[in-house]
Amino acid sequence: MASAVSPLAPKKVPTMPAIAGVRLATGAAGIKYKGRTDVLLALFDKGTTVAGVFTRSKCPSAPVEWCRAKLKGGKARALVVNSGNANAFTGKNGRASVAYTAKIASSAAGCKPGEIFLASTGVIGEPLPAERFDGVMEGLVAQAAPGRFLDAANAIMTTDTFPKVATATAKLGEATVTICGVAKGAGMIAPDMATMLSFIFTDAPISAEALQGLLSKGVTDTFNAVTIDGDTSTSDTLLAFATGAAAAQGAPRIEKASDRRLAPFREALHAVMADLAEQVARDGEGARKLVEVIVEGATSSKSARRIAMAIANSPLVKTAIAGEDANWGRVVMAVGKAGEPADRDKLSIWFGDTRVAHRGMRDSTYDEAKVSAYMRRPEVTLKVALGLGTGRDRVLTCDLTKEYVTINGDYRS
Amino acid sequence: MASAVSPLAPKKVPTMPAIAGVRLATGAAGIKYKGRTDVLLALFDKGTTVAGVFTRSKCPSAPVEWCRAKLKGGKARALVVNSGNANAFTGKNGRASVAYTAKIASSAAGCKPGEIFLASTGVIGEPLPAERFDGVMEGLVAQAAPGRFLDAANAIMTTDTFPKVATATAKLGEATVTICGVAKGAGMIAPDMATMLSFIFTDAPISAEALQGLLSKGVTDTFNAVTIDGDTSTSDTLLAFATGAAAAQGAPRIEKASDRRLAPFREALHAVMADLAEQVARDGEGARKLVEVIVEGATSSKSARRIAMAIANSPLVKTAIAGEDANWGRVVMAVGKAGEPADRDKLSIWFGDTRVAHRGMRDSTYDEAKVSAYMRRPEVTLKVALGLGTGRDRVLTCDLTKEYVTINGDYRS
Repeated sequence: MASAVSPLAPKKVPTMPAIAGVRLATGAAGIKYKGRTDVLLALFDKGTTVAGVFTRSKCPSAPVEWCRAKLKGGKARALVVNSGNANAFTGKNGRASVAYTAKIASSAAGCKPGEIFLASTGVIGEPLPAERFDGVMEGLVAQAAPGRFLDAANAIMTTDTFPKVATATAKLGEATVTICGVAKGAGMIAPDMATMLSFIFTDAPISAEALQGLLSKGVTDTFNAVTIDGDTSTSDTLLAFATGAAAAQGAPRIEKASDRRLAPFREALHAVMADLAEQVARDGEGARKLVEVIVEGATSSKSARRIAMAIANSPLVKTAIAGEDANWGRVVMAVGKAGEPADRDKLSIWFGDTRVAHRGMRDSTYDEAKVSAYMRRPEVTLKVALGLGTGRDRVLTCDLTKEYVTINGDYRS
Repeated sequence: MASAVSPLAPKKVPTMPAIAGVRLATGAAGIKYKGRTDVLLALFDKGTTVAGVFTRSKCPSAPVEWCRAKLKGGKARALVVNSGNANAFTGKNGRASVAYTAKIASSAAGCKPGEIFLASTGVIGEPLPAERFDGVMEGLVAQAAPGRFLDAANAIMTTDTFPKVATATAKLGEATVTICGVAKGAGMIAPDMATMLSFIFTDAPISAEALQGLLSKGVTDTFNAVTIDGDTSTSDTLLAFATGAAAAQGAPRIEKASDRRLAPFREALHAVMADLAEQVARDGEGARKLVEVIVEGATSSKSARRIAMAIANSPLVKTAIAGEDANWGRVVMAVGKAGEPADRDKLSIWFGDTRVAHRGMRDSTYDEAKVSAYMRRPEVTLKVALGLGTGRDRVLTCDLTKEYVTINGDYRS
């Protein structure tokens, strides 16, 4: 599967601390891949709360429907994730697979099926042979141990070229709480959703309601601000689990997202989400450039988002960046097609800190050689100023290369 | 520039008849290209009416703004088109170039500047050196001759690999009227607009108002039903010119698009538009497959269009087709992301005449070998039945290949 590691991979992988109340195990169920781990089991202590954000696809996967329904309970004891098969568009079989997986997991973990959360990623439309979990579930429960987040991130990869982990700590009352997150990409990544799969764990004693509040708000500028190809997955799932174990160290129990004591935690959670989201962009299929698109001066932040996404999803902008061409004419095209208020004669465009277009025409003073040198960098920032209002937004994407076409021309076969 | 001719090019180029009242000339003004024609001049007899449909881009080119304004007069005496430079996002210079071109063309053709229509295609953001028309305009007027539609189609090509022409005749009253059309693609082609450039000529005596009615309605299922890359151009222009010369053969003068005598003409015009639009899809940048997307059973035709476009613009669907993979899971994804009513458990999908998915899951009876053989064809039809209502639509696109990335990674340089 995974080809050479993306040149945009983070240079350092953080050491992932254990989260009290969370134990992890990975195994090889042989769902699709041979000779590699493809199942992740996370076990949570009693009292763990859960929140989630899912794809807005009208054709969501069976596990997404399961999680949406079970989220109402607000309690989690285990998470089972498999890679290689998305269990999406699998009809009654899909629902049966999900129920079966939850049953054997709950039986092995000693909890109710409704406290099991599930996610699947991989090919759409193939029935998931859930009976293959039979052979591994008991063993996973027996082996589960704290701190194995990097193994977890490896087990959920599909076309990803590197595992995605992030961690942060925050003060909650007088105690220090810890957040660990994992994520996977790497294609079918688009706006209006969470990312493919991401799981965040913390020992903070936070109610499901408060956690949901933080998560729903937090995705806007993190996972929802990343696009690889504009293609929204059927399986996007972001789940956060809070074990509450830090209450033993004096962390106060938080019921509402509006609780002022949450401020440092909110910030740390946001940092973890932003870090994972950026890693998803860095591992976009075939990506050779990380592209930051900044839009300012729009009539609203919503308008800025739409324009930023029109730019970030434009095949012509993305192929130009792959070709290291500062083709700002295509940026104009993308602004124009977004359907949002824009006045050609007020528009300015920058690549890096060079303004290449100003007030509706080429900036005659710009140095082409300097811009060309800039475009050869692995990380490129493209800024558009509309000059209409104060709406601002930032999204991340990657370039569109021949490798993207190669990867997706023979993924299924 | 143009590489090898698209394997999807029509096998036969029709013989293009002259249209009474239309004379054409092409020349080399050296706007960008060297050693090839890059200017088209069409001259029209007095009394020629005109109608047009343009890009919905919020950042349209200077020629688009010019044509929109002049269309109010409803009369045309000449059309000047150049390739190599779009004169888009060129600010005051752009407006000046347009006015200058209209001035020298009107002086050479002996008419008012407001009767000159203009279109430009090529790079965005470069000032158009309109003074280069000085050297060629008088000569073009002198050389203009009937029937040179194939030369005209050649002169307006950019990344197109073949010239696009189409013709038809229709009864109007007792007379036979003729329609000739030319078009160009080949990238930055997307919904919600006309195509890049297309010009249609007829000798039918039709008022500008009636012609506009036919054109505005006709684009819906022709040019607006084609997408190459979802990127809407700043320059899309479709203009139709009716010289009225067939009145001499007894064709009645038509004032309203609702006139019943127009029925055969409407049908012939639609056939020309559909033919040109299909040729645009056949010459999509890097295209190796022509893809027809049919959606039926949607809640409305508008909903069907949105779903069809979500499929036709999906990079993952298009790369799968390039890889000759009947990856219907990605079609499900695209239906799901369209945001339109869809019920996974009622959804069926066909490649050619093989139903691969039925009622929310894989059709267990389908023959993979047969579908694989079908996917190797140069023309592929993909049909989705939603099972919700009677809304139906059809759009054309092409596959997404490495050649698209290559072409667009070094177009400007």
